[in-house]
Amino acid sequence: MNVTTSGLADLAGRLTGSLTTDPDVLETFSGDESEYRAEGSPLALVRAATVDDVVETVKFAHRRGVPVVPQGARSGLSGGACAVDGCILLSVRSMDRILEVDEVNRTVTVEPGIINLDLKKALRAYGLAYPPDPGSVAMCSVGGNIATNAGGMCCVKYGVTREYVRELKVVLADGTVTRLGHRTVKGVAGLDLAALFTGSEGTLGVIVEATLRLVPAGPAPLSALATFPDVRSATEAVAAYMDTGAEPSLLELMDSITVGFVNEIGDFGLDASVGAVLIMQSDSVTAAADTEAFASVARDNGALDVAFADNAEDSELLVAARRSAQPGNEHYARNHGGGQLIDDVCVPRSRLADFCSGVERIRDETGTVVALVAHAGDGNVHPSVFYDRRDPASGVAATEAFDRIMALGLELGGTITGEHGVGALKSRWLAEELDEGNRRLHREIKNAVDPTGILNPGKMLDCL
Amino acid sequence: MNVTTSGLADLAGRLTGSLTTDPDVLETFSGDESEYRAEGSPLALVRAATVDDVVETVKFAHRRGVPVVPQGARSGLSGGACAVDGCILLSVRSMDRILEVDEVNRTVTVEPGIINLDLKKALRAYGLAYPPDPGSVAMCSVGGNIATNAGGMCCVKYGVTREYVRELKVVLADGTVTRLGHRTVKGVAGLDLAALFTGSEGTLGVIVEATLRLVPAGPAPLSALATFPDVRSATEAVAAYMDTGAEPSLLELMDSITVGFVNEIGDFGLDASVGAVLIMQSDSVTAAADTEAFASVARDNGALDVAFADNAEDSELLVAARRSAQPGNEHYARNHGGGQLIDDVCVPRSRLADFCSGVERIRDETGTVVALVAHAGDGNVHPSVFYDRRDPASGVAATEAFDRIMALGLELGGTITGEHGVGALKSRWLAEELDEGNRRLHREIKNAVDPTGILNPGKMLDCL
Repeated sequence: MNVTTSGLADLAGRLTGSLTTDPDVLETFSGDESEYRAEGSPLALVRAATVDDVVETVKFAHRRGVPVVPQGARSGLSGGACAVDGCILLSVRSMDRILEVDEVNRTVTVEPGIINLDLKKALRAYGLAYPPDPGSVAMCSVGGNIATNAGGMCCVKYGVTREYVRELKVVLADGTVTRLGHRTVKGVAGLDLAALFTGSEGTLGVIVEATLRLVPAGPAPLSALATFPDVRSATEAVAAYMDTGAEPSLLELMDSITVGFVNEIGDFGLDASVGAVLIMQSDSVTAAADTEAFASVARDNGALDVAFADNAEDSELLVAARRSAQPGNEHYARNHGGGQLIDDVCVPRSRLADFCSGVERIRDETGTVVALVAHAGDGNVHPSVFYDRRDPASGVAATEAFDRIMALGLELGGTITGEHGVGALKSRWLAEELDEGNRRLHREIKNAVDPTGILNPGKMLDCL
Repeated sequence: MNVTTSGLADLAGRLTGSLTTDPDVLETFSGDESEYRAEGSPLALVRAATVDDVVETVKFAHRRGVPVVPQGARSGLSGGACAVDGCILLSVRSMDRILEVDEVNRTVTVEPGIINLDLKKALRAYGLAYPPDPGSVAMCSVGGNIATNAGGMCCVKYGVTREYVRELKVVLADGTVTRLGHRTVKGVAGLDLAALFTGSEGTLGVIVEATLRLVPAGPAPLSALATFPDVRSATEAVAAYMDTGAEPSLLELMDSITVGFVNEIGDFGLDASVGAVLIMQSDSVTAAADTEAFASVARDNGALDVAFADNAEDSELLVAARRSAQPGNEHYARNHGGGQLIDDVCVPRSRLADFCSGVERIRDETGTVVALVAHAGDGNVHPSVFYDRRDPASGVAATEAFDRIMALGLELGGTITGEHGVGALKSRWLAEELDEGNRRLHREIKNAVDPTGILNPGKMLDCL
């Protein structure tokens, strides 16, 4: 260990923010929303208040070869923000200011710690919107969203976080501060390093500021909800509906197990006997016609029933069932031993039906409970595998199901992670997905940009 | 020189395509559509017919430290595909097949040499569209579009090439073949290397296959054309129109000099006395209302006249004037000494008026002829500076104007290139735009990925 207590005290003295070595605090900040926890413990937690705090901390770590784990709101599901042994946890959560709203150019410049929903709310006054909406929108930070290239329910129309990143200010491994990308609508001056750093999960640098593209706030959306006898008919309706050239702003699927869990925590008017539910939303000027078109395709594909909302409040009620899926999962987990592994496979939309039936097969063969929701319009499926933390055999079965679900995704031409990121949980699987040339590029770029390997080791790039 | 005639003959023998050292052919293939020509001459031109041809050629060059200049249709405007002394020109233009159209997942997989317009035409039968539309759409290759992250008139609604690249197959500097990106709608498994290679101008690898996102073909667009007394009122109309939250599929500006040039080559019904023209197009279901809304904003901002098209044919006639801008420029150049430097600055939309008036000032101060067109909705301006190739003083003045236009763009928070790329012409200016940390990242990544520096040297990264 190259770090002394007096060394840490010296670093603390140079910070506008704070540094703590309190074991209880470190324990709390060692985890994120995933099940992952590494062996060992962090040296310290730095709560950066300024860019200079980040620079000081990274320089300190760089000189001593100490791992740095950047953290936002720690809402990640892949362990990307979890502590590794002997690291400094570098939280930018307190750096949460909106620095500038540029109405004419439709951009906002923010510090990384701002909560996604807080940004959305602040933009309403300007008639502007920042579309990316991960499920954790109320608790996740925009910096974390950028670090993982986060998605959400709106992606089917609005795309992922990367499409909204114009310029990043980042602190590199040696403490150098640089700006990547461009504030203009278009720009091809040099390599697209802003895109490279977006989704790099803290392995290339620490994001300390971002200028994001905004869109005009649209009309209040309208929704429809269709129930189906089984998942296959629902996925066929998805394919048929998307084939019409439709551009829904949301198209979500829940299987019967998810419906059962959701019904446990609230009354969303969902019939417990249905095999699957599809929820669509349109925020275009043709929203009313869009919901009708969806209903028509759903009925043609075996829908049992279709419910409409003709105003924004009712519309939000229909979507509320989908928003309750993760709370429903957590409620179930709490009452059944606590364990939940959330998968995040994205497959070509044409393989969605095969993927879902494959997951049902894996569930049966492993004897696990698996609840399934999907950003169906994108082919991005989140099967949640449950287990009893008190029962090792159930944990083994859950891990097997979790892994087999990723293998199935790869087999169907998909990816192991559509939006949650690789983190610690999937680093072994990343090596399965990428070919050797691609893995080598990852190693070369990582070694070139962070030669001492201090930035978020043991995570995304660990097994390449 | 490490390359013998027998060595080249040996390489030629291993190719499905062809290799030539004919000086006349090499002379032709040494240039692109820019004014740039390097000193010296290439060793050979390889016309690759297969991925293996590219691999063989790159391996051959790698072993001998010979520069490789990848070429598509050589329609670039920044010299990125121009020969450097002692290089092998590696043309993938003949690799122009459509390998797969996937209607359900709305993707197409192509070889890099396919001409953009040929791809567009082939997709019509499927009711699908590939939006990126550089001005050179009829002659540029899709691989070249990806290598430069090309833009076009549709970007104001549809974004740039990067938004359409899902997966790339590339040949790396040592001949390794790898796949980057993902075919699925979403995917965050690893660093976004497909985005890194998009716009890398042949400096990191040779693109030999691409899977591209498509969109449903929209309704036939409608257009409107407004004339203004001066450029400033036209740019104010742009700002006011975009402020309404409008989503035109095209919003183009031409100044009076461009109008004059265009009138020389055809009758587009443009009054020679106008100070500026704005052309808008909408391909949405609300196109008719969109053109009305544009007309209303234009009139409120001083438009002299607004012409509408209420059908697709008339609509295309209005846009034809804009499509004739570059032919008009070329016609003027041919009759005035041949020299034309096409700039490509992108500024924040809020600075468009200042940029255009600054260009007028630079024109006056340098005594040059500068014609201006702009993808106005994006703040992306193409001032063309003319000079007489027989008059060195006029070349010096043009270069001064060209450079001052880029400096002005940077001063206004813009970029030296919105869509044409850095190439050879702007490599010195790239160093001005990027800060030292950013330049270092470029060097580190280039050195890591192409340690012997054989891939397109003397171009984009040359002055970093």
